[in-house]
Amino acid sequence: MSAYSKLSSHFARASALSNGIGILQWDSDTMMPKGAAGTRAESLALLRVLNHEMVTDPRIGDWLSAAATEELGPWEQANLREIERQYTIQTALPADLVEAASKASSRSEMAWRKARAEADFGALLPYLEEVLRLQREIGAAKGEKLGLSPYDALLNDYEPGGRSARIDALFDDLAQFLPGFTEEVLEVQARRPASEPLQGPFAAEAQRALGVEMMKVVGFDFDRGRLDVSAHPFCGGADNDVRITTRYDESDFSRALMGVLHETGHALYEQGRPQDVIHQPVGQARSMSVHESQSLLMEMQACRSREFLTFAAPHMRAAFGKNGPAWEPDALWRVYTKVERGFIRVDADEVTYPAHVILRYRLEKALIAGDMKLADLPGAWAEGMKALLGVTPPDDRLGCLQDIHWPSGGWGYFPTYTLGAMTAAQLFHAACQSDGDILPGIAKGNFGPLLAWLRANVHSKGSLMETDALLTAATGRPLDASVFKAHLRRRYGGEMDRSIAA
Amino acid sequence: MSAYSKLSSHFARASALSNGIGILQWDSDTMMPKGAAGTRAESLALLRVLNHEMVTDPRIGDWLSAAATEELGPWEQANLREIERQYTIQTALPADLVEAASKASSRSEMAWRKARAEADFGALLPYLEEVLRLQREIGAAKGEKLGLSPYDALLNDYEPGGRSARIDALFDDLAQFLPGFTEEVLEVQARRPASEPLQGPFAAEAQRALGVEMMKVVGFDFDRGRLDVSAHPFCGGADNDVRITTRYDESDFSRALMGVLHETGHALYEQGRPQDVIHQPVGQARSMSVHESQSLLMEMQACRSREFLTFAAPHMRAAFGKNGPAWEPDALWRVYTKVERGFIRVDADEVTYPAHVILRYRLEKALIAGDMKLADLPGAWAEGMKALLGVTPPDDRLGCLQDIHWPSGGWGYFPTYTLGAMTAAQLFHAACQSDGDILPGIAKGNFGPLLAWLRANVHSKGSLMETDALLTAATGRPLDASVFKAHLRRRYGGEMDRSIAA
Repeated sequence: MSAYSKLSSHFARASALSNGIGILQWDSDTMMPKGAAGTRAESLALLRVLNHEMVTDPRIGDWLSAAATEELGPWEQANLREIERQYTIQTALPADLVEAASKASSRSEMAWRKARAEADFGALLPYLEEVLRLQREIGAAKGEKLGLSPYDALLNDYEPGGRSARIDALFDDLAQFLPGFTEEVLEVQARRPASEPLQGPFAAEAQRALGVEMMKVVGFDFDRGRLDVSAHPFCGGADNDVRITTRYDESDFSRALMGVLHETGHALYEQGRPQDVIHQPVGQARSMSVHESQSLLMEMQACRSREFLTFAAPHMRAAFGKNGPAWEPDALWRVYTKVERGFIRVDADEVTYPAHVILRYRLEKALIAGDMKLADLPGAWAEGMKALLGVTPPDDRLGCLQDIHWPSGGWGYFPTYTLGAMTAAQLFHAACQSDGDILPGIAKGNFGPLLAWLRANVHSKGSLMETDALLTAATGRPLDASVFKAHLRRRYGGEMDRSIAA
Repeated sequence: MSAYSKLSSHFARASALSNGIGILQWDSDTMMPKGAAGTRAESLALLRVLNHEMVTDPRIGDWLSAAATEELGPWEQANLREIERQYTIQTALPADLVEAASKASSRSEMAWRKARAEADFGALLPYLEEVLRLQREIGAAKGEKLGLSPYDALLNDYEPGGRSARIDALFDDLAQFLPGFTEEVLEVQARRPASEPLQGPFAAEAQRALGVEMMKVVGFDFDRGRLDVSAHPFCGGADNDVRITTRYDESDFSRALMGVLHETGHALYEQGRPQDVIHQPVGQARSMSVHESQSLLMEMQACRSREFLTFAAPHMRAAFGKNGPAWEPDALWRVYTKVERGFIRVDADEVTYPAHVILRYRLEKALIAGDMKLADLPGAWAEGMKALLGVTPPDDRLGCLQDIHWPSGGWGYFPTYTLGAMTAAQLFHAACQSDGDILPGIAKGNFGPLLAWLRANVHSKGSLMETDALLTAATGRPLDASVFKAHLRRRYGGEMDRSIAA
């Protein structure tokens, strides 16, 4: 057996374990009764330790050296590169640190559910302190190995090759552009005649049925996935078992529907990964910014377009038994492109969303660097919201308790949302330029051409290329903010050009 | 650290793994999309191998020897006995046999779902052949170690200390008693005036709500469990996370309700296991016959009684918005004690059920012994049904394809159902004699006294004692069929004594 084959069998085995973890984590967030939390935390911690033992098996180092001399095709070579990348990161951590971090995150996530419901940051604080302490330790250990700052080392887990210096520049640029642009958009929208409200209630079951219908329209494969409910929407599960979640507000169906389409964008990426290496590192999604580009491409670029809403309007009317001017495509488009300064990131529109991300990015960078105390988070959050968005949340439920990321140990993740938004704009623009059937297809509920382009240029590539190379191959250049800004100006600015997707 | 402490930590770790397996297995049966079957089979097979590696760790043998000289209380001593029992059984099998059996069972279970729906035994046959081949191999390996026949070795996994020689005697006795008694019961019931049918349909959602209500009445803790839907009802999940399932027939609510109460009996046992050793071998349920005794005690002894049905009747009427003579307690009692010769084990009544079990017991014993070919199963099934029950199933869906046990690798399990029925009768009789509040409580929907007796005499004992000792401590004697027969005669026979629970 070649060294490459040994590596490939070994990682298929590790994948069988992480697929089990994926389903157990999904279950914890959707199905598990609360009294099982302690037992589940033990199970997840053990499985993560076993997974860590597998991916840090010292034989991997030997196999990697031996495989370097073997004759391999491009996919195998890329798989070796990804295995080596993972191995380097994973061997930076002792097993007891991995186990402690997993247990602390499980506990803190449970505490967060309660603290969030009760807007009680103090109840979460001790749990979150422990998570942060362990994340700083993890960042330091990985950073030492990779020659990176602790924050960049954490970021690198989600965004291989991502660096805060580059993100600082991109985000500072956006932070300068957006406040003025937001003002302009709000003025444009204020000049429009007020549209009639969409009158509810919208029964959760009807919302779910509409969500399932639209998931099928865009191409979700229900033989290899599910839609369920959780406190915080996510896309999780396992290989060939892609599970997305949402939450329903019976007074407003529009959020859950776009939330479902967003998670479906993630899910299509997962379902489109190359089958013959689906259990291998090279068969995984390229990075979190590319992942987020797929959800935002679907939600923001495709499904908030006039084209999609023209197609979807009659389905929405049928789902809820409604009619009238508020349910015409143009009125719906206004609802779905409405810009507002709000408190909640996941409810934010395309224009103000980056401000939410920039706030979190700056705060988590400071917390990991030790430049800020966790007890000062609520105050710093309020100040940041005021400065970036001009609003102050009335309590921590609408402030620093709104996201699951930090309590569950996801530090260094936030910037990938806005990198993803920029990537989405760049990819969708390239797709529409490459295939003139894409937009007319969306207008008829035919997502075949768009999905074919995404399958060919993104999904089926897995981690064959680095992020910059993937984007360059697909769009002709590495990531840059210009297409994203042009998209925002075109869809929301004073001068709207309706000749292309808005 | 004492050798006992090492064992105890080690088995807590193994329990964290088997709890994960329990939830993944539950998910496979309730939530998993069909395209995920291959991926899930890999995950479950790997986790079972890892679990097998843990419980066969050679250090266990050393720790057991060392712990034998340590000063230990009765629970610790019993835990050692259970650990040693498991270790002996588990070390009889090579890891590759465990893995092969797990994969074959996963595949065969998926094939069974399809074959059952299509009444196509031929489609299942090759998968089931492989499962049987591996089960015979497992039985032979364990039997050699324990000095048992392959069948007794398989039985011993579910029923520690159970032997087919003793079961043969008990079952031959029942097989002689029941046909004549069944005739008598059918004559008694034929002489009654026909009762009005319960007119449906009964919406699945209303059935579920009634099931949940009754689960709460009997004492199920929803903070540590769930109720869901699966093709074949079961009680599974994990420690402090007890998940039962049912299936709803909208033309007949009565089956799902009693099915739910049956599984709730299992679940109460699981939820009542001793918390301080819940992750240890001694904290597990004693055996499958004791487990089944808890489900049958709840379903057959408690909930098909006039007392319970008098309490439940108005709740049933309210759940479905019904009224009239068919919904009076006496009419409902006749529905719930109706005896019929049918094809389906899980739909069988208390009187004919043992015949279904005796058939399966005899067939699986012959298949494991190699006295019969699997291809001859449909024919042998039909013959056995004719001989024991006087009916012939029209197809294999209503015949040998109805149960999940064999396709999923559960060989040697079936006899525990009828051992459980006898145990249930013996325990319930002893409980009612020991506490005169139990029956009046059931008549008012107060299961507190019954549950207290079960908690004290069965649930909280875990595996502290052997099965015979447990039953002797609780009822004054080891298992014997006389109380079961007396119960059947009293409830169904020509001379009904209504002064005690019928």
